[in-house]
Amino acid sequence: MQSIRIGTFALAALAGVLSCSGKKGPGATTGAGGTQLADLMKARNLGEADVVAALKTYQPTGRHDDYLLFGSGGHSGQVVVVGLPSMRILKYIAVFTPEPWQGYGYGAKGEQAVLDQGKRFGKDITWADTHHPALSETNGDYDGEVLFIGDKANARLAVIDLRDFSTKQIVTSELLASDHGAAFVTPNTDYVVETSQYPAPLGGEYADLKEYNDKYRGAAIFWKFDRAKKRLDPAQSFAIELPPYMQDLSDAGKLDSDGYVFFNSFNTERAYGGVLEGNVSLESGASKNDMDYLHVVNWKKAEEVAKAGKVETISGMRIIRLPTVIAEGILHFVPEPKSPHGVDVTPDGKLIAVGGKLDTHATVYEFAKIKSLIDAKKYEGKDPYGVPILPFKEAIKGQVELGLGPLHTVYDGKGFAYTSMFLDNAVAKWSINDLKLVQKLTTHYNIGHLTAAEGDTVSPDGNYLVAMNKWAIDRFAPVGPLLPQNFQLVELNGKDGQMELLYDLPIPLGEPHYAQIIKADKVKSLQVYAPGTDAETFEKAEHAVEGGKERIEKKADGVHVYMSAVRSHYTPDIIRVKKGDKVFLHVTNQEQTHDATHGFAINSYNINLSLEPGEHTDVEFVADRAGVFPMYCTEFCSALHLEMAGYFLVEP
Amino acid sequence: MQSIRIGTFALAALAGVLSCSGKKGPGATTGAGGTQLADLMKARNLGEADVVAALKTYQPTGRHDDYLLFGSGGHSGQVVVVGLPSMRILKYIAVFTPEPWQGYGYGAKGEQAVLDQGKRFGKDITWADTHHPALSETNGDYDGEVLFIGDKANARLAVIDLRDFSTKQIVTSELLASDHGAAFVTPNTDYVVETSQYPAPLGGEYADLKEYNDKYRGAAIFWKFDRAKKRLDPAQSFAIELPPYMQDLSDAGKLDSDGYVFFNSFNTERAYGGVLEGNVSLESGASKNDMDYLHVVNWKKAEEVAKAGKVETISGMRIIRLPTVIAEGILHFVPEPKSPHGVDVTPDGKLIAVGGKLDTHATVYEFAKIKSLIDAKKYEGKDPYGVPILPFKEAIKGQVELGLGPLHTVYDGKGFAYTSMFLDNAVAKWSINDLKLVQKLTTHYNIGHLTAAEGDTVSPDGNYLVAMNKWAIDRFAPVGPLLPQNFQLVELNGKDGQMELLYDLPIPLGEPHYAQIIKADKVKSLQVYAPGTDAETFEKAEHAVEGGKERIEKKADGVHVYMSAVRSHYTPDIIRVKKGDKVFLHVTNQEQTHDATHGFAINSYNINLSLEPGEHTDVEFVADRAGVFPMYCTEFCSALHLEMAGYFLVEP
Repeated sequence: MQSIRIGTFALAALAGVLSCSGKKGPGATTGAGGTQLADLMKARNLGEADVVAALKTYQPTGRHDDYLLFGSGGHSGQVVVVGLPSMRILKYIAVFTPEPWQGYGYGAKGEQAVLDQGKRFGKDITWADTHHPALSETNGDYDGEVLFIGDKANARLAVIDLRDFSTKQIVTSELLASDHGAAFVTPNTDYVVETSQYPAPLGGEYADLKEYNDKYRGAAIFWKFDRAKKRLDPAQSFAIELPPYMQDLSDAGKLDSDGYVFFNSFNTERAYGGVLEGNVSLESGASKNDMDYLHVVNWKKAEEVAKAGKVETISGMRIIRLPTVIAEGILHFVPEPKSPHGVDVTPDGKLIAVGGKLDTHATVYEFAKIKSLIDAKKYEGKDPYGVPILPFKEAIKGQVELGLGPLHTVYDGKGFAYTSMFLDNAVAKWSINDLKLVQKLTTHYNIGHLTAAEGDTVSPDGNYLVAMNKWAIDRFAPVGPLLPQNFQLVELNGKDGQMELLYDLPIPLGEPHYAQIIKADKVKSLQVYAPGTDAETFEKAEHAVEGGKERIEKKADGVHVYMSAVRSHYTPDIIRVKKGDKVFLHVTNQEQTHDATHGFAINSYNINLSLEPGEHTDVEFVADRAGVFPMYCTEFCSALHLEMAGYFLVEP
Repeated sequence: MQSIRIGTFALAALAGVLSCSGKKGPGATTGAGGTQLADLMKARNLGEADVVAALKTYQPTGRHDDYLLFGSGGHSGQVVVVGLPSMRILKYIAVFTPEPWQGYGYGAKGEQAVLDQGKRFGKDITWADTHHPALSETNGDYDGEVLFIGDKANARLAVIDLRDFSTKQIVTSELLASDHGAAFVTPNTDYVVETSQYPAPLGGEYADLKEYNDKYRGAAIFWKFDRAKKRLDPAQSFAIELPPYMQDLSDAGKLDSDGYVFFNSFNTERAYGGVLEGNVSLESGASKNDMDYLHVVNWKKAEEVAKAGKVETISGMRIIRLPTVIAEGILHFVPEPKSPHGVDVTPDGKLIAVGGKLDTHATVYEFAKIKSLIDAKKYEGKDPYGVPILPFKEAIKGQVELGLGPLHTVYDGKGFAYTSMFLDNAVAKWSINDLKLVQKLTTHYNIGHLTAAEGDTVSPDGNYLVAMNKWAIDRFAPVGPLLPQNFQLVELNGKDGQMELLYDLPIPLGEPHYAQIIKADKVKSLQVYAPGTDAETFEKAEHAVEGGKERIEKKADGVHVYMSAVRSHYTPDIIRVKKGDKVFLHVTNQEQTHDATHGFAINSYNINLSLEPGEHTDVEFVADRAGVFPMYCTEFCSALHLEMAGYFLVEP
């Protein structure tokens, strides 16, 4: 279980250096009563590399982390925020799944409206399989304003405002039945890209699998982002139709390749399983071809074509049909080996690395070559749907042999690429210029994605990488058959410039797929809301309650309660209604002190609010059960927090 | 922001000790190329105390933590599991709130049945305000079998089996409208105690607040635990009626005081607010009296009385009415200062410490004195309901002045007690024998509960304590107006035997109230389930599917799908039904490999399962929307995980 690593600092040099470290405290020279470093190392069985790793990650009380990692929460439907280098989880953001601590989906009208946007075919969908977060970008760099995240299971996207780390919008189009290449942004966040994963008839209609080749399709939606409103605008969004392969990850071009976006695909075999119907399984059928197709998409051209109205509308979404996509030169294919996962544009926008999970290489495409081939219409053929295929060998810079199961590549901005090796349990570091493998670092276990500090922007920071391992097995104390994932923090420039493992972080909830790491000081989050703020609009709420103006009004539509919350009481603290009354609560947290959050719960009514300082929230419900229902503050606010309570009385 | 602490190891002694540490690695004496410890300290601005703290908490990859902390998740409705000393969160256990990563409340029939047990008045309650976890005990020591947790908001208890860290049972009685003194166990887990917090008419009936003194009541339920079944048995449980004070925390006697349980109370003033009705607020009204009442309850006597049938039944719960409670000598009061929170029995069972949050002392009661006063019927009066009141001064050992806002006390088994000081932002250490304050350690900020390693058992471990701070304010990088809580790890025997702060852990989801810390090796959790296990019963599931026997059967009640999941396919992988069909999925994960969990999701049907190795799960739903719905594995299981997919086809 113990790590075996080479010592990373020099003992002989230590004494001299320490004696001039200037860190002597009172009694430092006495040697009496103090815990000795070496005793401690022995007692805790720590080697020198452990000491270095510990000191590189430890944050004393009150010291802030330098980076924030935003990770998808997988099928928890949430987003996880981790501080680096301490690898402490700072927050789970409720996104697609109701979460009561944040008062998300437990009575608050504004938050419920966001969740309701996520319905599919009129049905509540109260979870998600969040895969790929995307921070908003300006000129190809993270700007810290907004985070997008995709739901693979139900083909949805969410928008999280980083002023308050809360979810403001969910969009979905019934055009798609699932997604995977979502969310990925263009360099100025003009569009957020969502590509389908499992082909289906567009728009949710029924067609038998026998008609797979003709009636099943892939598609990619370009969701238009309105930066002023910080919302996606479905009316300005459009889609392009794709052949029924399984489109996978995506990445937008930047700088030299700006205007293009790249999708991977697998299952160009168009297998669909059917093991009890005489077919091979999908895993077998989809793994026959040695090459699948890298999709090269000219999204600026697509935008023009959509603006020109060369679209049909399916499920309310404008879509450029495949013949038009081809005729307008929006889509070209380049072969890519074999069942690839990640497609990752280098920081300068010149190259694109693809990891074929059943191949042993990273394949590096050169955008300039692709562009020349497109311009010259130099095709080696067309796919069954007429999409032109560019010649593989003329499109690549080359390949680098990495080992087994290459999945996903990130960059350090210093000439190196880092590819996760699922089957090898390793991160492979390789030089971009000469395509040489430099180092492989063992990870634990089954690494999926990896992420580097600002590593998919135009200016990676080149210091940290996180390996997102899918299995933990024996890494942590046992907690039942369902185990955490294991995020491993890797220093990129450790001893001798090599990668060094610093820290193992169990992920206690959800299964993060991809993550992005941003400098913490780029994110300008609020400490408090302005008094009476509606957190959905960041404006003064219509029913905001000022201190001294609290009241209960019986109106035609029901009982309106204008309530304030402040340490340590609600006003009013007694609400009297009759059974069957509709109740409208309008609650404003009067606090303007950082961290002075109040909760508000009513017994047996499934209501819980989280009222941040200054926040106003509205609730509507029917008092359908007579009785005496305590209501109280669920966020420990003060010494008299338990006394911050009242009664909701429903007369029979 | 930076910590200011006294150096804890001696620099002068360091060189000599390190040179014989035996930890030299290759190149250790060269001094070339290695990172120097002192350079690192300087670069990261770490003092000596920081180095010590870092090394006392760091766990190299694969090294397991020594302790598991089980914390309530507050209004997240969940339980959080943290490893000590690394302070890494190992798992969030879904308890009262549906959680899709664990497949809890998203189609799995067994898990849904557990959640459905939590209904109140027939209504779904899909969140909770979890407050106090209680590990099962044998002879007053944690046995690692089961964890109980209370829901303050809706007066419920849950039972979590520590074989698989999953929730097996929720119980509630509509007798109570809220609870707080829950869950607390008797020393052999005969009973789990749940006391009400906010008085209300028993059983959920309506009565106006004008009738508060006459018709509102408190109560305590003694939930009988069936250890063989690992379930609470409502039929064998009973309650006692209490006056309408606000009963607060609880603790069971042990050893000398076994057979008794102690409840705190506040609001013996019987205030109920009404600030818009001419009354004072509850916080004001409930803070008038200098003394409230420590409730001394003879639960073994109560058990006898209940067995003798001297009960009424309200909302299906047998309850000993207050006159009988008094007549049978089940309940005595002792005055306690002022609006207390914690009541905590010492490891030897002889003393009981109470923190009065508006007082400056810990007040230490002596059980032998209380028992003598009860036996001698030496009362100083009775409360308005006739409960005899024992004389305060004759019941106590003494008081120790600690400062502002004492809340809760834990023990180290070495003669010291540790009390959280909410208003002082500190932990106060005091000696039990001579009632002297020994040390105060600053915490950040607003400490609520604290918890020590096995610190509320008969044999505390005396090494670690965790301060559960309610506010974080400036401790962590900003993540919006809603902040994490801050768990601070404290070493009890640091330099010169003093408490030392080791680590700050942000809690990223929920607001833990109390927590318990158990030696990790006491918890015997499963790696995999036996093939085809129903996780609710730990027995072979009725519909468990063996490999090779997968099939689809159309029966009178609908379409039954007997499915297996194994890397990397489902069998069957195509399901064809007609719109309106009832669908019965019977899915068995065939894996017997540790960590080989599979998910199972169907697009747009709000279904997601988490199938641990060996686990069988049943799902029933109506195929109410025609179309083509991809289904796939949501837990990244293998290199061909994305290919572990199929189609659910619903013909119109």
